[in-house]
Amino acid sequence: MSKNQMWGGRFKHGNTADVIRFNESISFDQRLAQQDIQGSIAHTKMLIHTNILSDSEGQQIVDGLQNLEEKLIAGQLEFSDTYEDIHMNIESLLQKEIGPVAGKLHTARSRNDQTATDMHLFMKKESIVIIGLIDNLLKELVTKADENVTTLMTGYTHLQHAQPISYAHYLMAYYEMFTRDQQRFEQAKNSADNSPLGAAALAGTTFPIDREYSASELGFSKIYQNSLDAVSDRDYLLDFLSASATLMMHLSRFCEEIIQWNSYEFGYVEISDEYTTGSSIMPQKKNPDVAELIRGKVGRVYGDLFSLLTILKGLPLAYDKDLQEDKEGLFDCVDTVEACLSLFTGMFETIKVKKDKMAASLEDDFSNATELADYLAKKGLPFRQAHQIVGQLVHFGMENNLPLQKMELGQLQKFSSEIQADVYTVLNPKNAVARRISLGSTGFEQVQYQIAKAKQYLFGK
Amino acid sequence: MSKNQMWGGRFKHGNTADVIRFNESISFDQRLAQQDIQGSIAHTKMLIHTNILSDSEGQQIVDGLQNLEEKLIAGQLEFSDTYEDIHMNIESLLQKEIGPVAGKLHTARSRNDQTATDMHLFMKKESIVIIGLIDNLLKELVTKADENVTTLMTGYTHLQHAQPISYAHYLMAYYEMFTRDQQRFEQAKNSADNSPLGAAALAGTTFPIDREYSASELGFSKIYQNSLDAVSDRDYLLDFLSASATLMMHLSRFCEEIIQWNSYEFGYVEISDEYTTGSSIMPQKKNPDVAELIRGKVGRVYGDLFSLLTILKGLPLAYDKDLQEDKEGLFDCVDTVEACLSLFTGMFETIKVKKDKMAASLEDDFSNATELADYLAKKGLPFRQAHQIVGQLVHFGMENNLPLQKMELGQLQKFSSEIQADVYTVLNPKNAVARRISLGSTGFEQVQYQIAKAKQYLFGK
Amino acid sequence: MSKNQMWGGRFKHGNTADVIRFNESISFDQRLAQQDIQGSIAHTKMLIHTNILSDSEGQQIVDGLQNLEEKLIAGQLEFSDTYEDIHMNIESLLQKEIGPVAGKLHTARSRNDQTATDMHLFMKKESIVIIGLIDNLLKELVTKADENVTTLMTGYTHLQHAQPISYAHYLMAYYEMFTRDQQRFEQAKNSADNSPLGAAALAGTTFPIDREYSASELGFSKIYQNSLDAVSDRDYLLDFLSASATLMMHLSRFCEEIIQWNSYEFGYVEISDEYTTGSSIMPQKKNPDVAELIRGKVGRVYGDLFSLLTILKGLPLAYDKDLQEDKEGLFDCVDTVEACLSLFTGMFETIKVKKDKMAASLEDDFSNATELADYLAKKGLPFRQAHQIVGQLVHFGMENNLPLQKMELGQLQKFSSEIQADVYTVLNPKNAVARRISLGSTGFEQVQYQIAKAKQYLFGK
Amino acid sequence: MSKNQMWGGRFKHGNTADVIRFNESISFDQRLAQQDIQGSIAHTKMLIHTNILSDSEGQQIVDGLQNLEEKLIAGQLEFSDTYEDIHMNIESLLQKEIGPVAGKLHTARSRNDQTATDMHLFMKKESIVIIGLIDNLLKELVTKADENVTTLMTGYTHLQHAQPISYAHYLMAYYEMFTRDQQRFEQAKNSADNSPLGAAALAGTTFPIDREYSASELGFSKIYQNSLDAVSDRDYLLDFLSASATLMMHLSRFCEEIIQWNSYEFGYVEISDEYTTGSSIMPQKKNPDVAELIRGKVGRVYGDLFSLLTILKGLPLAYDKDLQEDKEGLFDCVDTVEACLSLFTGMFETIKVKKDKMAASLEDDFSNATELADYLAKKGLPFRQAHQIVGQLVHFGMENNLPLQKMELGQLQKFSSEIQADVYTVLNPKNAVARRISLGSTGFEQVQYQIAKAKQYLFGK
Repeated sequence: MSKNQMWGGRFKHGNTADVIRFNESISFDQRLAQQDIQGSIAHTKMLIHTNILSDSEGQQIVDGLQNLEEKLIAGQLEFSDTYEDIHMNIESLLQKEIGPVAGKLHTARSRNDQTATDMHLFMKKESIVIIGLIDNLLKELVTKADENVTTLMTGYTHLQHAQPISYAHYLMAYYEMFTRDQQRFEQAKNSADNSPLGAAALAGTTFPIDREYSASELGFSKIYQNSLDAVSDRDYLLDFLSASATLMMHLSRFCEEIIQWNSYEFGYVEISDEYTTGSSIMPQKKNPDVAELIRGKVGRVYGDLFSLLTILKGLPLAYDKDLQEDKEGLFDCVDTVEACLSLFTGMFETIKVKKDKMAASLEDDFSNATELADYLAKKGLPFRQAHQIVGQLVHFGMENNLPLQKMELGQLQKFSSEIQADVYTVLNPKNAVARRISLGSTGFEQVQYQIAKAKQYLFGK
Repeated sequence: MSKNQMWGGRFKHGNTADVIRFNESISFDQRLAQQDIQGSIAHTKMLIHTNILSDSEGQQIVDGLQNLEEKLIAGQLEFSDTYEDIHMNIESLLQKEIGPVAGKLHTARSRNDQTATDMHLFMKKESIVIIGLIDNLLKELVTKADENVTTLMTGYTHLQHAQPISYAHYLMAYYEMFTRDQQRFEQAKNSADNSPLGAAALAGTTFPIDREYSASELGFSKIYQNSLDAVSDRDYLLDFLSASATLMMHLSRFCEEIIQWNSYEFGYVEISDEYTTGSSIMPQKKNPDVAELIRGKVGRVYGDLFSLLTILKGLPLAYDKDLQEDKEGLFDCVDTVEACLSLFTGMFETIKVKKDKMAASLEDDFSNATELADYLAKKGLPFRQAHQIVGQLVHFGMENNLPLQKMELGQLQKFSSEIQADVYTVLNPKNAVARRISLGSTGFEQVQYQIAKAKQYLFGK
Repeated sequence: MSKNQMWGGRFKHGNTADVIRFNESISFDQRLAQQDIQGSIAHTKMLIHTNILSDSEGQQIVDGLQNLEEKLIAGQLEFSDTYEDIHMNIESLLQKEIGPVAGKLHTARSRNDQTATDMHLFMKKESIVIIGLIDNLLKELVTKADENVTTLMTGYTHLQHAQPISYAHYLMAYYEMFTRDQQRFEQAKNSADNSPLGAAALAGTTFPIDREYSASELGFSKIYQNSLDAVSDRDYLLDFLSASATLMMHLSRFCEEIIQWNSYEFGYVEISDEYTTGSSIMPQKKNPDVAELIRGKVGRVYGDLFSLLTILKGLPLAYDKDLQEDKEGLFDCVDTVEACLSLFTGMFETIKVKKDKMAASLEDDFSNATELADYLAKKGLPFRQAHQIVGQLVHFGMENNLPLQKMELGQLQKFSSEIQADVYTVLNPKNAVARRISLGSTGFEQVQYQIAKAKQYLFGK
Repeated sequence: MSKNQMWGGRFKHGNTADVIRFNESISFDQRLAQQDIQGSIAHTKMLIHTNILSDSEGQQIVDGLQNLEEKLIAGQLEFSDTYEDIHMNIESLLQKEIGPVAGKLHTARSRNDQTATDMHLFMKKESIVIIGLIDNLLKELVTKADENVTTLMTGYTHLQHAQPISYAHYLMAYYEMFTRDQQRFEQAKNSADNSPLGAAALAGTTFPIDREYSASELGFSKIYQNSLDAVSDRDYLLDFLSASATLMMHLSRFCEEIIQWNSYEFGYVEISDEYTTGSSIMPQKKNPDVAELIRGKVGRVYGDLFSLLTILKGLPLAYDKDLQEDKEGLFDCVDTVEACLSLFTGMFETIKVKKDKMAASLEDDFSNATELADYLAKKGLPFRQAHQIVGQLVHFGMENNLPLQKMELGQLQKFSSEIQADVYTVLNPKNAVARRISLGSTGFEQVQYQIAKAKQYLFGK
């Protein structure tokens, strides 16, 4: 007969060593130790509350678990791969702590709802951590934006000079993205904030448990209404992974731009020594390693998302062992997102903005061409015709290496007699930005207004 | 000089024919025709409202666009690949309708904010359609659950008989999943419900536009606060795709089970003729094609999601042409999700449940073993010991082809003297279900309670 | 009884209209019409050869099919959604062509092996097309490399200036990548070059068919050895999709660089008017749309790959309807890869290389720092120490805006007395390249050698 | 000035602690320790061979490295996170071993080609391991097939009974799949079998190195022909990951079937105690955990593939730090594939086939319907008509719970007068299998022939 103390009765033979190694999860789910202990404490308190356990037995278990939690925090708890998962490790440690009464902890509970409870607690906690890290980044963005309202730079589309913009406006675009990310993690947190405890193996239990009591002990604001769903649901993990994928995508875009701007050719920013590294062979190198790594790490988060989506495809209810594969990818995602957010914020904080280089990029390009087209349109030309005229002017300017603002008035008038001396004001990049007045535009006033709102939101709360 | 009327001024040569074909989007974005017209009407009304256009010019444009919309609905609008996208097609059609004044429509607007507006309108509309389709499915689930509260079936974990459950309980697990899906599409709808109109190319405009006015005309409840973000944001599409991926995953699980249950071996259900097909070679075949196709279509939705995530990785601000690739995958996802929801609901509605087969599956299995362990635990044995005893009983029963409820009392007592005659009540599957009383469990009362809540939610609203 | 002529006997009710629409594949598998006809001709010839069909009956069928093929090529064949797929369409058309004898075509065959045969023929043909398109690209790369052996440019790592290289060397790196891609499509072609015809539904047939005969008629060089495998295998599609994903990844890298190089800041290349487009609002814009679209289209190919991987996950043998979902993604992938290869080659061919800008990028940077470190190492200093000294020199040079080659000898010697007047030769970028002599390095001689080998391979064959 | 000994000269400040932790790779690339040492030995021997290093200096380095390798194998080497990667760890350990001459090891080499060399060696080695593991599985498949040529079972399509087949035929379908997998890993091995050593940072070196010499020392059969490509190529990893994804997909299909067949309802097989586990709550449970975990692990391998594809998208040449992210996913994939192959083979070996249950599944189904249709077709009826008649017979049989072989002859003849007494031979499942004679079919002779070929291939070599 199999020696396995949890379920051996029905088996003649035990698992081979490699099967035990393949099945075990203690090597990674020990990360849930604290959640597991807390879940067990809440479960026991509920068993006492409902008189399923006597006060004295229950209290022994609670005390024992609290001792274990203290030891865990103090780094004194050792897990053994003799027990395949964190639940059996904790139960075994509890047995050593308080003797056979520990066996009563498992009343009216299964590992299926237990592992689900641990993971919900963990994801809720980590979602909150990430929401805080995004907060730090948002504050840094707004602070830098506030310092750079009048810092001019080229706005790009297609990586081509498009129109002059305020650097603060650019930063506030990322502010918007990360604000949405924060909301997405709020939703992920809400998805995790749902107690499966008491669903037992799949069908609930015949014991008169009080699921709302244990949920409340654990700080869950709601409980699963269907026990099959409670043990097989992984939507809350997908919500977290999807939120992570989008966040990492945003970071990858920002990093891509920082890497470009930090290049010799752009030269708009200089990443600090702290966030760059050298080369073992090329002495001049100062590489934007941190930005590159963050950009690269979007890959592993996408991978984690698709991994779980694949696992869940076509899986019958209720619990299947495939679901054990949910954890490592999630842990990897949590660590990646937290590290990337924290490192990115640090890197961003110490980036040196080269305002002169940014401004210089607007001096001999043609990013003010739209201004001229708008100028002509306001004089009454249909916009399409104005566009056509300015296109010809740009073509002429490029051939002769002459930006619009450096052309003589007479020269300009050869293309349209509507052009007057006031055109040079219009062609000035600073004016081009200032004159943008539509809500959400790059105009200085608009940008200031958005920053003020953001500061109120972030620092006023 | 290039002939392109939209942007030819600066170019000496036009695109080659294959480049034009590669760049064009009219072959797929014509699907946005109505949104494009509505967006233009709202934009024009705003231009009138802000006196950027005169009343008479503006009204000509509005009238022309309304004519186009009527023709579109009547199927009388023809698009031409002479114009690369839906925007230029509509503008050209308008020109034919009302003459050169049509050119003024493009004042204070760019194709960047225009295409974004169309897509936001479209996604908002389709999200609402999907929310409605989920509603239909939820209602069907609850209706069938209501009819099957006392229909017994085997609850599975690991595709092994686990514990007896109510078939209604099983259905209500899917009810929970699809309820979450509905909420996810609500969130996707809210993400889409955000007006980018007025962001222009990337930086806003110098015209005194009123973005709130046009947003309100279009039924948007909020507007983008940053113009760079407005034209480059695709988060709302990712929200939709993520919601779709999770929904399709749920459907793939349900279909997997239906396919299994519809097999000769399980025989729990029979899919109707309407939703099955035969074989061109094997005359006896009745294949669950619809269920299989839905299960397979989870692949294309996952693919659509990963496709957009890939496109967005590392893309610099603001608009890049890569973003044109967002549409086809989205359209495919919308069509797939809508068809699958609708077909699944129809298939589910007409499935014949073979209650006898379901009940029979509980007669000679050992899914009541937990009941016996709980029975012993309630007699005072530590659960681990009770579990061990029942495991041995199961092993004995299997060797002798004797289910627990068919063993003599004396036989049972050889394994534990705690077992008494009342055990046979406990071992009855119906009692096993009925005695589950915990919130969300499979107990009949619990299931009835959940169904009542769901009916109130679905039909009471 | 169902009206379906292929399999109606066993059914009481027909499919609903939306089920028929959901199940049909004629809207996309009509693309396989020619393969389907050719497969049927080969099958019929085999039936004649093995005396399963009489010569006269067989010849009638062959003639009828050949007529259909001619009409198809002439664009005169019309398919109807009355018949769910291309196989039933062709059979129905054949019936109209030659009467009831057409019914004998389906002897010893099932749609399962028929559809597999069509798809294998198609994939083999398209693999060959793509191999040819890669050949065109390789030739263009080598031609341009040949013209640019001594064109100097900055070699980058981390998007930072690393070491001077030959532009031809850079191009030949892509030559290597696309050569591997070509091999991968050769493997994909070999995977497709395998005849499933004769596997019937799943188990083979009782008719004395000759599978090698029909395979040979169709130009297949081998046949599936197991009938279950023959109808359920999709590995050959995964091979094609994987090859496509890697190819598109290479194109995305190349396009990324072209987009960067085409920017105002880099200015290394100028994409021709033919492959760029303008903006409807900004008259100066000349956007690298083609390069961006190709970069973006990597997303849809990744999506197509992931889609099929998902579909196949956990699918039981032999044929399941999920497998019908294999086609649209494949067709999309084929079209995308062929268009991208063709467009990219055209764009690359017409790109203007700005040699002056490339050379200028080496004038005041520090990409020759490794040369100096190597110089010192050859004088006997341990490389680590040499590296350290040059690092300090670079730091000094940057602070004083002075590249190494413009420092006075006395200045250089303050950092190391080993530096002599011959250092200026070493610091010259052209010499830095020329002196690289290791196999596969950027040295002019090496690059010339590689180009010569490539020309021999490409043009000599 | 930064303390970093490898590249500190140019830097004023060092990295922060969290940056160092973020950048480090020693925590995972220590797995490449042996490859790193072997690569360094080969490099040094080459430096001696080409007189770049003196014999005595070179020999000191070689001896030192060999000592390190011995210590590594003996488990006596300790790595420190003071050094960011395995390369710097080994160099530092060597320094302790042999003093400052260790510094000369880095002559004519960069970490870029060094890390690429390590990874190529590793992937080649692991590919060979996997090829061997597949060999074990193939042998087990053929052995079991050999024992089960005449074991009858139901062949399924759409999870519906299709036609009777030989269980050996079913096993040989998987034999075909895994044979292709083996070939794919051969290709992956060939891709890895390519020496990047000597490419240096990106451009090759000015030292007169002999790349073919070092490649030969390391057992590489070819060398990269372009140094930029050598340091940035990750195709060989994609080849490995793609091969792994397809292999795992095959395993997921096989496991899905085993899980189904192991269910109470199918009952075709019983997985041994060694490869199943119990439940902590349900004493009767015997769960197919190993099969489920393998099925689930397809998710992580798909994730690993998509992770790297994402990382590589749009990455400029040559080396970028993003590429450091290639390793962990690969290591995870290697471990997963090796464990799954090994465990699956063990599980498969010990599965008990319940031949009676398999045979019984053919007794009262209609999987012999095709036989009857073929019977009628051979009597001269067009197949379509024969199919129609049998369809009606099946329908009649189902309504009356009467399989074809149990119908009276008179009954059968009511549907077609062509049916004679010899029909009962045709309807016998064993005959149905035996009479299949086409190449690759399920007929006993064919199956035996395929097994004989496979045995020759596997055991004859």
